[in-house]
Amino acid sequence: MVTANQKDLVAQAQKPAEEAMRLHPFYGGKIQTAPKCPVRDYHDFSIWYTPGVAAPCKAIQANPELLYEMTNVGNTIAVVSDGTRVLGLGDIGPAAAMPVMEGKALLFKYLGGVDAVPLCLNTKDPDQLIEAVKLLEPSFAGINLEDIEQPKCFYVLDRLRAEMSIPVWHDDQQGTATIILAGLINAAEVVGKKLSEMHIVVFGSGAANVATTRLLLAYGVNPAHLIVVDSKGILHAEREDIAAQRDVYRDKWRLCQITNTEGRKGGPAEAFRGADAVIALSKPGPGTIKPEWVASMAPKAIVFACANPTPEIWPWEAKDAGAAVVATGRSDFPNQVNNSLVFPGIFRGALDVRAKTITDEMCLAAADELARMARRQGLDAEHIVPTMDDVDVFIAEAVAVGMKAQEQGVAQKKVSREALWEHASKLISHAHELTKVMMEEGLIPAVPA
Amino acid sequence: MVTANQKDLVAQAQKPAEEAMRLHPFYGGKIQTAPKCPVRDYHDFSIWYTPGVAAPCKAIQANPELLYEMTNVGNTIAVVSDGTRVLGLGDIGPAAAMPVMEGKALLFKYLGGVDAVPLCLNTKDPDQLIEAVKLLEPSFAGINLEDIEQPKCFYVLDRLRAEMSIPVWHDDQQGTATIILAGLINAAEVVGKKLSEMHIVVFGSGAANVATTRLLLAYGVNPAHLIVVDSKGILHAEREDIAAQRDVYRDKWRLCQITNTEGRKGGPAEAFRGADAVIALSKPGPGTIKPEWVASMAPKAIVFACANPTPEIWPWEAKDAGAAVVATGRSDFPNQVNNSLVFPGIFRGALDVRAKTITDEMCLAAADELARMARRQGLDAEHIVPTMDDVDVFIAEAVAVGMKAQEQGVAQKKVSREALWEHASKLISHAHELTKVMMEEGLIPAVPA
Repeated sequence: MVTANQKDLVAQAQKPAEEAMRLHPFYGGKIQTAPKCPVRDYHDFSIWYTPGVAAPCKAIQANPELLYEMTNVGNTIAVVSDGTRVLGLGDIGPAAAMPVMEGKALLFKYLGGVDAVPLCLNTKDPDQLIEAVKLLEPSFAGINLEDIEQPKCFYVLDRLRAEMSIPVWHDDQQGTATIILAGLINAAEVVGKKLSEMHIVVFGSGAANVATTRLLLAYGVNPAHLIVVDSKGILHAEREDIAAQRDVYRDKWRLCQITNTEGRKGGPAEAFRGADAVIALSKPGPGTIKPEWVASMAPKAIVFACANPTPEIWPWEAKDAGAAVVATGRSDFPNQVNNSLVFPGIFRGALDVRAKTITDEMCLAAADELARMARRQGLDAEHIVPTMDDVDVFIAEAVAVGMKAQEQGVAQKKVSREALWEHASKLISHAHELTKVMMEEGLIPAVPA
Repeated sequence: MVTANQKDLVAQAQKPAEEAMRLHPFYGGKIQTAPKCPVRDYHDFSIWYTPGVAAPCKAIQANPELLYEMTNVGNTIAVVSDGTRVLGLGDIGPAAAMPVMEGKALLFKYLGGVDAVPLCLNTKDPDQLIEAVKLLEPSFAGINLEDIEQPKCFYVLDRLRAEMSIPVWHDDQQGTATIILAGLINAAEVVGKKLSEMHIVVFGSGAANVATTRLLLAYGVNPAHLIVVDSKGILHAEREDIAAQRDVYRDKWRLCQITNTEGRKGGPAEAFRGADAVIALSKPGPGTIKPEWVASMAPKAIVFACANPTPEIWPWEAKDAGAAVVATGRSDFPNQVNNSLVFPGIFRGALDVRAKTITDEMCLAAADELARMARRQGLDAEHIVPTMDDVDVFIAEAVAVGMKAQEQGVAQKKVSREALWEHASKLISHAHELTKVMMEEGLIPAVPA
């Protein structure tokens, strides 16, 4: 049965790749520039360009705040990568990373009404990348870092957050952490356990899992009940190998200090024993997580097997071994924990209040709102996160993020909940309508047979 | 009469500024991101993003040439400025320069079907700017430098042209030079003189005029018959002040050596005497060029008074003083020499053959084609350059540029004249249709009363 299923799944997993290879060259890219202002005739260029444009320039020079009124900068972010850790493909370089960054820009527009510019930078040096991104600050209202390898990604994110006055976000860290937290909140609800009391195994300790752990702790998970596992086994205070690299893996070293207070040692088998939940973002499976490990967990266990393209354990294997709720990163299984549910709404909210940064608390607010939206759609063991065909999910998330930013004093603009809702709704609807009209009018050709 | 005219002109010149201040905040910017591919439903994201997108990424990794098939990079350029010399406003900084760069991106799309990203960089250090732009190479098929002060702009352009393998263009130099040459070719035709025999005064020696001079020489103007004037007077081989700065003003120093072989000295009055044409790109007038200087020129004199917003001499003053053909940079007078006629077509042509650079010969081809298009529209003393409401102008220019690039061996793609015409025509029509449909469907709101 597993073999037949695997065959089906492999075949199914191939389909998007085949369509991608057929349609990417047909369309020659996924985003383009469109006007935001009318061109009634050529005389309009004397308003949008010389000589008229000098007036808005002078106005911004006199009052820099007007940049956000006079231009589209306030709704524009950069999607920045060096191509060193793209999807599960590894270090494929900046050119080969472009299809992902263009795709991300498409999602930003369609799901969040955010204008995004894909920028793949030809350097592996983090300081060069940091300097280039900092120079771009006048042109963008936010920076989405993407697919940058660790430990570099921590350093790049930390420095850019500290040195830029616009929000800088690393989606592989913060976006993934946010959707996992949202799913875990609801999974706990489904199995009737309190998140703050749960024993949780974090399996794998890459950038995403380290960020997830930080967010779980910020949400109120008890660090004493957390066990983090990396390729060498359970993290504990005596892990000399991590101590030796504590300067670059600062968060990971901190986790050695504050988690696993019982001082458990060993490998995954020891880690899983008695746990209420496992959050895995490690190596593609199947077979990365063994069914017997799941069987050793507490009753009504929660298993998030999020490796792509194949989860660490097949969902049916986990269920057979006793898991009550299983989530993966794939769209063809129930409970897809996917950061596409996060970044468009987070940025929509951050931009709409002109947040100077995106705090962990804004991520928590987004996670809570996503969990709430899933409950509104109908919560059960196979529906712990919302589906993205409900526009309100992104709007509600943006509103929650925007309100939290104002509450925390990181917003540069005061906007009411109602106005935030209306604005996000308007921009997201506009993106949908634009796409629809372009398809109907043949401005985007129909998919060839 | 002059005073009444001046009042009218001042009032007229104010109108675009007033409309700009009213409409820039209303539209909140001039460009936005639009999809280039369809979104039939949310499942399409598995093609455009994960998991399907991995396939095009791997394909590009294996064959970097495929970047241009799989993404929109091949049609995308960056409009880069440091905001140090914006319009006639001077060093207003990168944020205040954004309305110009956004406007330029709008023109690139509407007139040339080119997707352009405005990038204003927060640095005055040319090496920092150069490093940042070089890092961006994987994301763009071309770089349009804009509004960078001299002498920095020469250094930046020279280094980026040498060190990048995509076309780098400084519009204030090359674009201006191209349209001036086009106008001068036809002005010579109108007055029945041979350009190669004409005595020409280049009045002002900023970046644009230095580039114009280089292009005139490349076209066949006799350097011995050229006289260049800067704020300190006529350029000649004994100008110690320029000699002292020859490292940064290399082209200008070279002009001291090769022009004005008669060794004329003095100011504008001496320079103009007996000249067939003057190309002025100096300080805004009126009064910068005196009528008596024009009166001292050869019969059937040509006067290009291109300072913005006010020409160095009013056109009617120049005509009263005996000029046969007068051109300015303004749209409200006949013969507007405007680089908007150049950069969309030049880049369209360069991108369509994947030119590695934009050579002076490609600029000459563009100038010749623009001159030809003006003759096709109907040549006379008030119509020496084409008007931009004729789409064929940009298409013909792109074709001429693309053919010249292939002839010179700087094109990486072989494309027939017919295919170039068809492709340019398709992309420019698409931009017009997109704008029209967006306006009709309310995706761009109507201009408020």
